[in-house]
Amino acid sequence: MYRKEIKVMDCTVRDGGLMNNWQFTDKFVKDVYKACVESGIDYMEIGYISSESAFSRKEVGPWRFCDDSEVRRIVGDNKTNLKLSAMADIGRIEPADIRPKKESVLDMVRVACYVHQIDKAIYLAEHCMDKGYEATINLMAVSTVMERDLNEALEDVGRSKVPIFYLVDSFGSMYCEQVELLVNKYKAALPKKTIGVHMHNNMQLAFSNTITGIIHNCNMLDATILGIGRGAGNCPLEVLLSFLKNPKYKLRPIYDIIQKELIPMQKDIQWGYHIPYLITGAMNQHPRSAMKWMKGENKDDLVGFYSFMLDQKDL
Amino acid sequence: MYRKEIKVMDCTVRDGGLMNNWQFTDKFVKDVYKACVESGIDYMEIGYISSESAFSRKEVGPWRFCDDSEVRRIVGDNKTNLKLSAMADIGRIEPADIRPKKESVLDMVRVACYVHQIDKAIYLAEHCMDKGYEATINLMAVSTVMERDLNEALEDVGRSKVPIFYLVDSFGSMYCEQVELLVNKYKAALPKKTIGVHMHNNMQLAFSNTITGIIHNCNMLDATILGIGRGAGNCPLEVLLSFLKNPKYKLRPIYDIIQKELIPMQKDIQWGYHIPYLITGAMNQHPRSAMKWMKGENKDDLVGFYSFMLDQKDL
Repeated sequence: MYRKEIKVMDCTVRDGGLMNNWQFTDKFVKDVYKACVESGIDYMEIGYISSESAFSRKEVGPWRFCDDSEVRRIVGDNKTNLKLSAMADIGRIEPADIRPKKESVLDMVRVACYVHQIDKAIYLAEHCMDKGYEATINLMAVSTVMERDLNEALEDVGRSKVPIFYLVDSFGSMYCEQVELLVNKYKAALPKKTIGVHMHNNMQLAFSNTITGIIHNCNMLDATILGIGRGAGNCPLEVLLSFLKNPKYKLRPIYDIIQKELIPMQKDIQWGYHIPYLITGAMNQHPRSAMKWMKGENKDDLVGFYSFMLDQKDL
Repeated sequence: MYRKEIKVMDCTVRDGGLMNNWQFTDKFVKDVYKACVESGIDYMEIGYISSESAFSRKEVGPWRFCDDSEVRRIVGDNKTNLKLSAMADIGRIEPADIRPKKESVLDMVRVACYVHQIDKAIYLAEHCMDKGYEATINLMAVSTVMERDLNEALEDVGRSKVPIFYLVDSFGSMYCEQVELLVNKYKAALPKKTIGVHMHNNMQLAFSNTITGIIHNCNMLDATILGIGRGAGNCPLEVLLSFLKNPKYKLRPIYDIIQKELIPMQKDIQWGYHIPYLITGAMNQHPRSAMKWMKGENKDDLVGFYSFMLDQKDL
């Protein structure tokens, strides 16, 4: 699929960091950056920006904060075509923490929110634009939002100046039919905005749901190297690039870092398709209960987890 | 998706056997049988039927032959609602080897062929029907067949009495758009026949391509437990059953055997998503070169395999 408007966003460090509290080595983050530059990726999301008070530096690594000095330690002044993004969670950063673009090597801030936070997200995203950044709004957990609330949120976003809005399958619970309906809904409500897709792989549908987004004219596509990310992980960057065939994208740098860094990392971090993640995804539940189960003493008891989740649904 | 015409075929032993020369223990095959019965699956494909001369018993296990006595050792007289199938490869079995249905515990023979063998496949499938079996034709490697040849094959199948015809993505190289075109083509050419789908997971699309088949009214759906199968494997049965939600299907027996047998088996047999399989799938090539690479001394050199495959394509 060749469509020059398509932009690919690598979320390896930001979303993968949800599995190890962003405790990556500088070498790893530098190698991801280098691979993104060499492969012609459009954006790299290097982490979250957060208020210093939101997390303890004893627990989380630098990519939960993305201080400018730390980002520059990796990318210098980033004299490349790769743009750098950071995600901002509503509730974990204040508008006053956003420094002017001219003091930062970041190019984009993506504001993640739940539907009841949409007003705050619009305010923060427009504030970031006023400070000189590109901005998006990523509405999380839309699979649990009532239609009336979603319609109102879309109306609010439509009136904002934020140019990019994301369909996010937080729980990995959507099939192509849900993606198609929501993308068409987003495009109808936001005809002048770019729609992005961020998919999770609980049901092995992250890549195919991304294709569904592409078919329906979504032009911002999130992916991670070898699919690393929370729980079942994300749309794998290497599969997406194999599909896109856009001449600007190169696969070799991605295979190189997979071989040298991602496959060895799988020994320490268990992302990807696992039955507990399938179970939460198919039940439209947050993966946290699966992640907790997989760290517990009964982690191998899949039938037990299935029974546990069914019990949770009984009211 | 609830459609009562849908039938699910478990291919765990038959397709999984391509990874270990059908050297499964009787306990494993019995446990798969038991899980299929308990989960309400419609068909279980227990292996291939082959002429004794086609393979050496020293190299392959019993499920490459499916002698009636060996099948009965597992299933007795199979007094259950689960039907039993075996696959017949054109060139590896003669019509004379097919015994009458009344002497066999098998219910169905699925005839696998390449496009140039379609006449032989129709002859063998009709011969099996004359002997009392249900029969299908599974046309392999259709991603490499020229349109003119496919049209002729479909005309021939249309004139036959074989009631079921399969779309098979042998190389795991199809996206939803290819599946949609081919299913629609098959249905237009064979309006009175049932269309089945058998998908491979090289690009993490086996399940989503199966959904595409379902949306376009395919009613025979192949899957394997935990996706076990040649190379990248197949559509995972547990994901498919999570989607179907048909009340006759039960997930618990499948999770139970995954926990007790399939996950331990992954230590010995490496099926599933691996970069070499992605590379052959995305290039529309047979997975044999990926399987060979993954057994060789350079198996961890993913960039090397990518370069090797690109070189192969240079004419």
